[in-house]
Amino acid sequence: MSGEQAPTLQQQPEQETKPDEPPPAAAAEAPQESASSPAAEEKPLSWRALVLTGHGGYEKIKLQVKTQTRPQLQAGEVLVRLKACGLNFAELLGKQGLYELLPAPPVILGMEGSGVIEAVGEGVTDRKVGDRVIAMSRSGMWQEVVVVSANLTFPMPEQMSFEEGAAIPVNYITAYMMLFEMANVRPGKSVLIHMAAGGVGIAVTQLCQTVPDVTVFGTASASKHETIAQGGVTHPIDYRTKDYMEEIRKISPKGVDIVLDPLGGSDTQKGFSLLKPLGTLVVYGAANCVTGQKKNLLAMAKTWYNQLSLTALKLMQSNKAVCGFHLGYITDGELISRTMFKLLELYDQGKIKPRIDSCYHFEQVTDAMKRMHERQNIGKVILLPEAKEEEAKEEEEAAESKSNPEPAENVEKAEAAVDEKEEEATEEVKAED
Amino acid sequence: MSGEQAPTLQQQPEQETKPDEPPPAAAAEAPQESASSPAAEEKPLSWRALVLTGHGGYEKIKLQVKTQTRPQLQAGEVLVRLKACGLNFAELLGKQGLYELLPAPPVILGMEGSGVIEAVGEGVTDRKVGDRVIAMSRSGMWQEVVVVSANLTFPMPEQMSFEEGAAIPVNYITAYMMLFEMANVRPGKSVLIHMAAGGVGIAVTQLCQTVPDVTVFGTASASKHETIAQGGVTHPIDYRTKDYMEEIRKISPKGVDIVLDPLGGSDTQKGFSLLKPLGTLVVYGAANCVTGQKKNLLAMAKTWYNQLSLTALKLMQSNKAVCGFHLGYITDGELISRTMFKLLELYDQGKIKPRIDSCYHFEQVTDAMKRMHERQNIGKVILLPEAKEEEAKEEEEAAESKSNPEPAENVEKAEAAVDEKEEEATEEVKAED
Repeated sequence: MSGEQAPTLQQQPEQETKPDEPPPAAAAEAPQESASSPAAEEKPLSWRALVLTGHGGYEKIKLQVKTQTRPQLQAGEVLVRLKACGLNFAELLGKQGLYELLPAPPVILGMEGSGVIEAVGEGVTDRKVGDRVIAMSRSGMWQEVVVVSANLTFPMPEQMSFEEGAAIPVNYITAYMMLFEMANVRPGKSVLIHMAAGGVGIAVTQLCQTVPDVTVFGTASASKHETIAQGGVTHPIDYRTKDYMEEIRKISPKGVDIVLDPLGGSDTQKGFSLLKPLGTLVVYGAANCVTGQKKNLLAMAKTWYNQLSLTALKLMQSNKAVCGFHLGYITDGELISRTMFKLLELYDQGKIKPRIDSCYHFEQVTDAMKRMHERQNIGKVILLPEAKEEEAKEEEEAAESKSNPEPAENVEKAEAAVDEKEEEATEEVKAED
Repeated sequence: MSGEQAPTLQQQPEQETKPDEPPPAAAAEAPQESASSPAAEEKPLSWRALVLTGHGGYEKIKLQVKTQTRPQLQAGEVLVRLKACGLNFAELLGKQGLYELLPAPPVILGMEGSGVIEAVGEGVTDRKVGDRVIAMSRSGMWQEVVVVSANLTFPMPEQMSFEEGAAIPVNYITAYMMLFEMANVRPGKSVLIHMAAGGVGIAVTQLCQTVPDVTVFGTASASKHETIAQGGVTHPIDYRTKDYMEEIRKISPKGVDIVLDPLGGSDTQKGFSLLKPLGTLVVYGAANCVTGQKKNLLAMAKTWYNQLSLTALKLMQSNKAVCGFHLGYITDGELISRTMFKLLELYDQGKIKPRIDSCYHFEQVTDAMKRMHERQNIGKVILLPEAKEEEAKEEEEAAESKSNPEPAENVEKAEAAVDEKEEEATEEVKAED
């Protein structure tokens, strides 16, 4: 989305309050109430935000409470109280200083979320206070309230949960554009998707099911194979114990038609060599750059050094196509918008449905990021802006210690927690650093 | 086509007779007659062929008469008496030693032709003697008779002339695969085709008309604009007097969705920069390497030096796709075959029709190649294996001197000449060096 079309956090109130300063009650009021009461708009607004304070480890992300008078919306803008935010690989990169589109710290992270419109600026005719929407921005979405261009909000179908809404934009637009705009997937084609259990991986798998007779090869660790196979991966491949190139060649000696590569480095080269003639490789990430939780110069150098480099001549001799995809560099808001509406149509038709791996409250952002970093997730990791209640925490911890040693909550639990929160919207916001 | 699937001239009789040695009458008999008479098969076969004897100027291509006992066909092969052959840019390159897929001289040039089947090998059930077919091979098609794999012959529709048949394979398969397999042209898209009046250019333009609402930008010299505009080019651009990038930006400031580039070098870079986000560049040649009639090391170095070189990272930042296409490197015979049948269907539906620029007898191969080299042609340049009659020559020369200073004959004249030839099939073959 363009700078013009996506006012980012530059336009957000940025004064910082001390974390322990109690926020005014207005901030925790139910959005509908505060929006419908003109008096509420006069009160200062206070909200929680996840701020990247510098590049490095998890400790660089701080939960802060910001307080400001209600922002004056510009024409075309809306104020959204977010209920759920999506975590993407871009934030893992951004934390390490490897995401070039993220403004320098301090900066609020986050590219997608869903919530309820609390105020609309001049000239906004197709959104109204109370609308449940998905919202996008280049950064700044990990906070309780956000000002965005109405053009980059999308009405949510009634049956869609906030978690699902927050899980759609980045993963599904990426998957859709790669498959249908760049790679031209058609009946009878085969697709290799790496990290098939990740957010994009699952979106790709679901979108491939909308085309008849598409074979999906998906790499993931063995423990995830049953789940991704149920989701539509024809041939799950354990990249940790096997050479995925060999495995694919055993099943399809000629290779595959489409390779979607979020890894970079030598995997891009392997992907290129796996392509059938007239096949297409789409590179959309360099996950191989990320090893530990801080910037790893050796991994970066290795990924860089091994990255696919091509001349026109080499491409001609191989009859192959190489594409790069990076949603952050798509500056055509209309293209984004058209794709989102197409995806919402597919959701309505029951053809796509985001799989929520787990939900974490803002306080638990480190756990959320670790889960993705360590590739434990199957589907989307969601962040919930509203504070985790002490009671809920204790209950969940008890439940987890019985049934599940992992810190993540599954979506049902998290949804229950959200419901509780909504009933008790005047609860005090708790900020943790 | 693969070596297995496309027996090339290695399997052709290659003994050479002295050019002045009179060929036996059998060679000039009507194909049906010679094939239906067992006695005829015992007679040695004599035929004309255009042989590249070394790399360099036009003098390196010699018209030779070859004589041999009738070849024993292998299983799956057919013997075709060719009536028309296509001239491609590959032959201009091959003559200069720049077409890496052409075997070392002496070698018979030519990749496509059309004619009549004169004998079928064992196991060939779907072709029979007398069938009018289009035939393909990696080289060796510029001769009167050729042995090819039956799999690479395609029955010609009744209304298709031999000239049209010979004009289809290389240009239309290239255009089709680039547009529909690689670049995924769809309604509303825009396409830039260089050399829009050339064989591929016209095929691309026609195929773009099969998709609703496609805008075609086509470069060609001004004298050809009216013709290509009638053929479907929306915006003809005179690349000789104008900067085509500027011209396109004036009409479409965002650029184009698809660029098809047969030029190479700096034009590939320009094409890449002209792409819209999610756009596709297909490089399918390096015509910029060819300047004079002999290898030009400076032009080659310049083209090579300026060729587009990309890393995965650069592609990601631009959200673009780069493909290479080279029909010669497509080794999947089935893919070729499927595409040819699709093209024949489009021909039957009246959606494509090769535009024949001119026809030259084998004796006139230098004129034919010059015409293409100097980019005078609008559409396909065809070579006719049968000898030009002295009478016809004189008549045409007289007609040309009256109406047209160019050496090329238009297709109607050429067709008349062919008809005359067929009536007088026992005419002596005349060989010229």
